[in-house]
Amino acid sequence: MRLPIGTEWVLHCVTTLAQTEPETATSAAQLATYYDLPVASLAKQLQSLVKSGILIGSPGPGGGFRMGMDPDRITLLAIVEAVDGAGPHYICREIRQRGTGALPPSECKNPCILAVRMDEAHRAWRDSLASVTVADVLAELPDEAPARTRRRLIR
Amino acid sequence: MRLPIGTEWVLHCVTTLAQTEPETATSAAQLATYYDLPVASLAKQLQSLVKSGILIGSPGPGGGFRMGMDPDRITLLAIVEAVDGAGPHYICREIRQRGTGALPPSECKNPCILAVRMDEAHRAWRDSLASVTVADVLAELPDEAPARTRRRLIR
Repeated sequence: MRLPIGTEWVLHCVTTLAQTEPETATSAAQLATYYDLPVASLAKQLQSLVKSGILIGSPGPGGGFRMGMDPDRITLLAIVEAVDGAGPHYICREIRQRGTGALPPSECKNPCILAVRMDEAHRAWRDSLASVTVADVLAELPDEAPARTRRRLIR
Repeated sequence: MRLPIGTEWVLHCVTTLAQTEPETATSAAQLATYYDLPVASLAKQLQSLVKSGILIGSPGPGGGFRMGMDPDRITLLAIVEAVDGAGPHYICREIRQRGTGALPPSECKNPCILAVRMDEAHRAWRDSLASVTVADVLAELPDEAPARTRRRLIR
């Protein structure tokens, strides 16, 4: 089970955009150059972040992306799920009710205990990512990082 | 990010085998009939469980699969990772060291803070699944389940 390669891209791009001036849009091309990433694929991922409200996108020349929320309101979970979806990792297809071993419906009123345990693990993963915001990540960066980031985000 | 479809199969099959007599082998075909699953794909998944020591496989007619460890020593994590691998969900490709934004090596001695947080979430997921054994799952089944399971596992 692997997160898509773009997960690293969007986590870094949101962290980067959170260091720019609030009113300044940064283009997908700028971010692609900044991280040496394929611009078309990156642009697609950034659009997912716009859809989820994490970023605001503005089209046309001079357009680009800027923060759609305060960094302390954006969790790593929100970023990850914006590009990978929020669905469960484990799908219970109710095989307990199939084949010669099929359980009677009366024993299947509650969810399968295996599905429940798998769901608890998914929740532990989500809770962990939901406990970290972009603001928390920014707080770990060196003091000079934001100025340097802005300087290097050349148009 | 999705676990393979076989995850549900192996979780159920190990739980089923844990209800059989310790010395009795159950074939992939029996388990496939029991859960109405494609036998060739299921056999492959069961072989992964043999490789990891969870099951013992014996070839030939009358052969099949039986438990390789006590149910209280088999965690859900071990079963899931036997078929899906134990690798991380998130791969850090160090994009912080690429492009025009590349950080100096002196700032990259520690792992990227985003990778650290993603790794913590992975650990939370693993810890959750490692805290549940097959014995715990068996304890949740109705008292009559093992006898019924054995009866229905027709050759």
